[in-house]
Amino acid sequence: MANISSAKMILRYYPYTIALKHTFAISNNVRTTNPAMLVELEYENIVGYGEASMPPYLGETQETAAKFLSGINLEQFKNPFELETILSYVDAAAPGNQAAKAAIDIAFHDLIGKLLNKSWVDIWGYNRENTPFTSFTIGIDTPEIVEAKVKEAAEYKILKIKLGSELDKEIVETIIKVTDRPLIGDVNQGWNDKHYAIEMIEWCAENGFKLIEQPMPKEQLDDIAWLTERSSIPIFADESVQRLSDIVKINGAFDGINVKLMKSTGLREAKKMLELAKNLGLRLMLGCMTETSCAISAASHLAPLVEWADLDGALLIENDKFSGTTIQNGKIVIQDKPGIGVKKLF
Amino acid sequence: MANISSAKMILRYYPYTIALKHTFAISNNVRTTNPAMLVELEYENIVGYGEASMPPYLGETQETAAKFLSGINLEQFKNPFELETILSYVDAAAPGNQAAKAAIDIAFHDLIGKLLNKSWVDIWGYNRENTPFTSFTIGIDTPEIVEAKVKEAAEYKILKIKLGSELDKEIVETIIKVTDRPLIGDVNQGWNDKHYAIEMIEWCAENGFKLIEQPMPKEQLDDIAWLTERSSIPIFADESVQRLSDIVKINGAFDGINVKLMKSTGLREAKKMLELAKNLGLRLMLGCMTETSCAISAASHLAPLVEWADLDGALLIENDKFSGTTIQNGKIVIQDKPGIGVKKLF
Repeated sequence: MANISSAKMILRYYPYTIALKHTFAISNNVRTTNPAMLVELEYENIVGYGEASMPPYLGETQETAAKFLSGINLEQFKNPFELETILSYVDAAAPGNQAAKAAIDIAFHDLIGKLLNKSWVDIWGYNRENTPFTSFTIGIDTPEIVEAKVKEAAEYKILKIKLGSELDKEIVETIIKVTDRPLIGDVNQGWNDKHYAIEMIEWCAENGFKLIEQPMPKEQLDDIAWLTERSSIPIFADESVQRLSDIVKINGAFDGINVKLMKSTGLREAKKMLELAKNLGLRLMLGCMTETSCAISAASHLAPLVEWADLDGALLIENDKFSGTTIQNGKIVIQDKPGIGVKKLF
Repeated sequence: MANISSAKMILRYYPYTIALKHTFAISNNVRTTNPAMLVELEYENIVGYGEASMPPYLGETQETAAKFLSGINLEQFKNPFELETILSYVDAAAPGNQAAKAAIDIAFHDLIGKLLNKSWVDIWGYNRENTPFTSFTIGIDTPEIVEAKVKEAAEYKILKIKLGSELDKEIVETIIKVTDRPLIGDVNQGWNDKHYAIEMIEWCAENGFKLIEQPMPKEQLDDIAWLTERSSIPIFADESVQRLSDIVKINGAFDGINVKLMKSTGLREAKKMLELAKNLGLRLMLGCMTETSCAISAASHLAPLVEWADLDGALLIENDKFSGTTIQNGKIVIQDKPGIGVKKLF
């Protein structure tokens, strides 16, 4: 008879409100806090940590996450290593809930890595030295505050500029007065007219921008394809791509994609998305929401796969619940610790 | 200062001639032995096993493998977990040599799994219960021998029939007289005319065949696409797809692909191929050459990913150098042992 372990997987979760260092604005939202749900998965006295970060404009809340997580029954599974089966069950438990699903996925990865006594960058066979520099995000703000933020961000080699408001040119002109670092423009669907968009893109290209993310609403895929065909810098998808199944649909309309754990339902699908996109000739970016070092550290294990990383989420918050992956002179540094490599601080 | 291990990876290899139980014929080749090269990768007193199987019609020999392996310098690497970097180096060392490259890849997977004390089916997060039945291959032979082989193969739930000779109908009629098991037809590029091919495919479909592999030469991709459009059973690529980069090229011309470690350069690329093909809507088969239980066991860890498996390579040989994955009542049974789960027998 097989030696069947009687150990159980126990899932716990609690809401956590992330406090931002600065008021943060993008094209359609302004905020000073960000709701999260932290997850702990215990098995054989080992705890794996996970996190759902839920910016309000994405539709999930601490209430929806609690409801989703309370419905997950892990007692039916005996072996945490059967991740494909377990995460398929979690995904099928309810539609949407990507951040809550990501929290479970991250906790499983942390647990499994600890059971293997290895970090995921090793288990996946990547080289931890091959991480890119992260970009650092400058929100939409007054010229004075933007200028102050750019100076504060001296350590970061690439700046991500939030565009998509009537302040676009003013913000960019403020920035290029104080720095010549490469810029990424994140429009968050903020431009509605393709002729205006291509004009802005070319103006950005002339002013140090290396790529533009999601210039137009995801519903306007034909317009975006029109832009991609004409743009002299790469156009990346963000809101247009949530899950693995979206990639084949947008192929051709974009030059690259930005993969985020809170959209992809976690690491397992994010890795599949990055590999599929790469094999289809798309360029790769790894992004984040405002997150603690739990979700940021998790994502960082995929950083050796990508050309562009935007993993500054934990740098922008003042009550980080975890230590883990750090940014040193702008470069992503993954801890050589088992799992996702985090420590709970308080 | 970082604690840098001074352990070295040591690669050893020796030729091994696989003896077949029966003379084996496919559409363009007949043989009683098959040349292999066995590899041992030692690190910190742990040995990982690998194998190159080199059917003569694929162009590699024990000599070419020895030459390739002798040129590989692993001393430049300190950490066997940096598999993406190491295998990229191995792949770039010389073109071709897919089986020799697979031997290294398999040995690394065996070593790493042993260092993690886990089998790859677990590390990859699959469920070891989810393996399919393997098909069992019946070569081209006289009706008497074919009939005897089918009876001997009573344990196997699916038979793979080698087609592509003028004996096709005679062989199939012999088989369906003695069994009503589902059949797979492997033509190995043996049909040259698309009108003859579609006629044969439909005749096969009426006689219990569930799919047809590589009906025509890989150079005739347009003809194959023409067949796939018309065929009432799925058409799978074998010779048309060797490596990851081939999949995007054949998409549309086939319904599915057969991935083999000796074509793909091993497990790492085979997994990428299966995932890419799946995401492009292709159906999946995992195949093999005549191989010992070393390479067969390695491949079996990917079996939970596929609909069809043809991992009978070790069943057809009489001097298996390894024990490992077995076939029980036709089903693939992966050992719950670290790495690829094999034991060297002598």
